[in-house]
Amino acid sequence: MGIITIGREFGSGGRELGHRLAEELGYEYYDKEIVDAIAKRSELDENYVAFALDGGMFRNFPIHYGRTFSYSPTLMANETKLLAEQNKLLKELATKGNCVIVGRAADVILRDYNPFRIFVYADMESKVERCKKIGGEHEHLTDKEIMRKIKRIDTGRKKYHGLLSEIPWGDKRGYHLCVNTTGREIESIVPLVAAYYKLWREEQ
Amino acid sequence: MGIITIGREFGSGGRELGHRLAEELGYEYYDKEIVDAIAKRSELDENYVAFALDGGMFRNFPIHYGRTFSYSPTLMANETKLLAEQNKLLKELATKGNCVIVGRAADVILRDYNPFRIFVYADMESKVERCKKIGGEHEHLTDKEIMRKIKRIDTGRKKYHGLLSEIPWGDKRGYHLCVNTTGREIESIVPLVAAYYKLWREEQ
Repeated sequence: MGIITIGREFGSGGRELGHRLAEELGYEYYDKEIVDAIAKRSELDENYVAFALDGGMFRNFPIHYGRTFSYSPTLMANETKLLAEQNKLLKELATKGNCVIVGRAADVILRDYNPFRIFVYADMESKVERCKKIGGEHEHLTDKEIMRKIKRIDTGRKKYHGLLSEIPWGDKRGYHLCVNTTGREIESIVPLVAAYYKLWREEQ
Repeated sequence: MGIITIGREFGSGGRELGHRLAEELGYEYYDKEIVDAIAKRSELDENYVAFALDGGMFRNFPIHYGRTFSYSPTLMANETKLLAEQNKLLKELATKGNCVIVGRAADVILRDYNPFRIFVYADMESKVERCKKIGGEHEHLTDKEIMRKIKRIDTGRKKYHGLLSEIPWGDKRGYHLCVNTTGREIESIVPLVAAYYKLWREEQ
């Protein structure tokens, strides 16, 4: 079974890399499917589930969100359950066949399946640019606001990952390959990352 | 001009990667040449020069070496001069043509030449194994002694690099690509790293 996990800084193009890599290799790509399945099982709102599964409860909230998001023990219990549910689902998916999974601390959760672990990162300027290019809500944010959002989301990822692994999130020791996407087109590097992975698999 | 710099943990195979990469690309590979040139210019012993240029003065010495290596201001001035000499030489080499340079904080020294920066690393067990395979003085050392040597040498590299750059030695933000060589044959990954580099160069 071939499993590729992709950790990534927000705005570094990790999701695009994952998606394209799966396409290139003929692998399954799991992302929104995971959120949908968990939302269905838990009967909770998809956006809330997506937030919770991306380390939402571990983020530092900006002060003006203070009241809306102040955490109650019930809410934390809820999210802990969702994360446990996700871990179960990840393991189910891992036994189904070759796949690429982005984020979700899948590198740690699926440790026993010997995944090929990639980390994707870029410098802040490049990440802000990429966010603006993708558009969506970023169109209405200033560069400073996007930067703060990037830091906030990555803080959540780092903290969640830190609960599960001794090697910190984004620490190169936890990955087979770390790719700096600053100023690069994701599309062009996909075939090379795919070739690097295939070779690694042959050597296992 | 194409310049590739390779930072590497001791025992991770970075030197082999550099050498083979230069071969694959038809680039010059500078390593012992640098030591020889500096030794000649300074009329100092090659081994001493090699030691000094690999961050020797910044290493933590094991206690039983304490006396032999206790640093006098003269010695430090000497090594500072050697390092300055090396920096000058690196810049001369960089203007000569395409090349691969391993270590020597060349990623920082040659910053203005926009080098492609690789960092090579591996887990400790794998580095100890590689050291034993290479042989030499490692044949007479226990695993524990090799491990201590690895840490000592890398401490020197880290400290020297830290004097020149805000981004710490080995921090992925300072590199375009970080390659984990744990359990891998260097030879097999060379063509892929070369292809990745060529693509990067086209995109510049």
